[in-house]
Amino acid sequence: MKRQPTIQDVATLANVSTATVSRALNSPDRVRETTRDAVQQAVQALGYTPDFGGQALASGRTNTIGAVIPTMDNAIFARALQSLQEELTTMGVTLLVATSQYDPEREEQQVRALLSRGVDGLILIGQARAARVYELLEGRAVPYALLWTTAPSGQQLSIGFDNSAAAAKLVTQALQLGHRRFAMIAGITKGNDRARARVDGVRATLADAGLTLEPPYLVEGSYDIEQTVGIARALISLPEPPTVILCGNDVQAAGVLKAVRQAGLSVPRDVSVLGFDDIELATAVDPALTTIRVPHRRMGRMAAHLLIGWIKTGQRPDSVQFDTDLIWRASLGPPPA
Amino acid sequence: MKRQPTIQDVATLANVSTATVSRALNSPDRVRETTRDAVQQAVQALGYTPDFGGQALASGRTNTIGAVIPTMDNAIFARALQSLQEELTTMGVTLLVATSQYDPEREEQQVRALLSRGVDGLILIGQARAARVYELLEGRAVPYALLWTTAPSGQQLSIGFDNSAAAAKLVTQALQLGHRRFAMIAGITKGNDRARARVDGVRATLADAGLTLEPPYLVEGSYDIEQTVGIARALISLPEPPTVILCGNDVQAAGVLKAVRQAGLSVPRDVSVLGFDDIELATAVDPALTTIRVPHRRMGRMAAHLLIGWIKTGQRPDSVQFDTDLIWRASLGPPPA
Repeated sequence: MKRQPTIQDVATLANVSTATVSRALNSPDRVRETTRDAVQQAVQALGYTPDFGGQALASGRTNTIGAVIPTMDNAIFARALQSLQEELTTMGVTLLVATSQYDPEREEQQVRALLSRGVDGLILIGQARAARVYELLEGRAVPYALLWTTAPSGQQLSIGFDNSAAAAKLVTQALQLGHRRFAMIAGITKGNDRARARVDGVRATLADAGLTLEPPYLVEGSYDIEQTVGIARALISLPEPPTVILCGNDVQAAGVLKAVRQAGLSVPRDVSVLGFDDIELATAVDPALTTIRVPHRRMGRMAAHLLIGWIKTGQRPDSVQFDTDLIWRASLGPPPA
Repeated sequence: MKRQPTIQDVATLANVSTATVSRALNSPDRVRETTRDAVQQAVQALGYTPDFGGQALASGRTNTIGAVIPTMDNAIFARALQSLQEELTTMGVTLLVATSQYDPEREEQQVRALLSRGVDGLILIGQARAARVYELLEGRAVPYALLWTTAPSGQQLSIGFDNSAAAAKLVTQALQLGHRRFAMIAGITKGNDRARARVDGVRATLADAGLTLEPPYLVEGSYDIEQTVGIARALISLPEPPTVILCGNDVQAAGVLKAVRQAGLSVPRDVSVLGFDDIELATAVDPALTTIRVPHRRMGRMAAHLLIGWIKTGQRPDSVQFDTDLIWRASLGPPPA
């Protein structure tokens, strides 16, 4: 790369001090408009971008938040990140996102990479990960928030909801309609505390009703429509097929709808299908999915405010737990007679 | 933050030189396994993350690629990014992603933010953006690749496909089935050269057949299912409704399917619906969408290889243009009699 223009170059061109340049860039409301414009013009003319190292030294911050999410596929995390980013943007903070593909080792690498780029804080999804990742974050005193989960100990900032209780709502509703033969296609529970909690919620609620959920009626699979089609085909071909299929999320539920359609059967007449998340896909499919509405946008916005608050004050805020709603749509009906 | 552990701390704990630590981290195949393990243990024990500044000075690189994409919603860019990241991971390079919400100013901010974090190269979507962004990149000699597009001049590295020719394929197919009354719900074309090119391809092909496409049969809208439902409702309520509706992408096409369903009409019996992208949604909906298969994964993989090659050699590689396929599924049929 060529020599990067420095803050001194900008100051010279704009005919102001470097302190003024810094102020114009970091606290634009604290300088006059003409000064701000002059600095802005010099910045653009020179192609200046604030130097990471210098900025970090000056303010102790990089004004960057990192997020490591499991995947960008299927828009599962997209809406929360969108809201997170919109809030951060209004605060002048940049969001950088990396993905782990649900792989704990890769997640750890991404955390280290973001830390070495000097992020001020981190967003992680869920709670299950190697202790050394938490030790790294605590040791470096980097503020971080866990989304989509409720951290049990009160020792961490979590911004999420009770996955187990949410899944239980779906079961309760199906029981009230008279369903007794349940199946569940869960997400891969290894390293995924959200998927695990949803299975636990389903099984506990069924147990209260004197029912069990065991293989082959309980299967784990990835959050992928086509892979789920195969799993669902096997379920509806069982000698005693389930009358309702719970899914780890809406993506899997869309796969079940497809498998039922391909088998010449009908939802919910022959089998009911339940999703989780209420992403846009839930109403794009036909019939629309009965599902759990996850507070995507509220989690995103709240994460921005709490994490930035922590960074500014040095005080870890209290965790936040949101309620979830069951959204009843056409994919749930009574069991076949 | 507390004092960050240094490479010297790691070297001391692992009982090796700092040069060895650096080699173990950057070229693990060049050190013995026992040394590598010792360094790795020290890294984890100390919570060491390579210091951005030091690493950049040492090798001139940060081993980070930045990408600015319009949105994480709807998985439009997810599959390409996934492949891009998988390839980069095998090369030991981290991908950081920021989103612009289709806003040119925000895109520019994100580019500057990524540059100031010291990325080695950048991935951008499409070609339409302020000249000063390109001047900034050229001035700083930062390798960058434009995806989803074909840069016209040969002055830039583009890895994409011909959006106009792809859209034309859909029209040609519909014309051959006997369709004469076309409508198109396009993406917002302002600042989006891909959306613009698709409209151009459609209109040019229609013109060759002696047909025109003007409002109210040509409408722009955002890539959002619910907003598209409203637009589609108006189209199918026209005194002379279209017999086929082309869409800017599959997300919009899913919205059209929904509107047609809500109106008590049937696809493709009453109206055919055409998508673009072939994301997973295209086969999750019923009927499945006839659409253009965009080479998501090939673009992602190719971008990783060409951009890293450029960074390593300093030579800008030639642009790559992929073919696109029309995928014929149930949403396209002959016009109503």
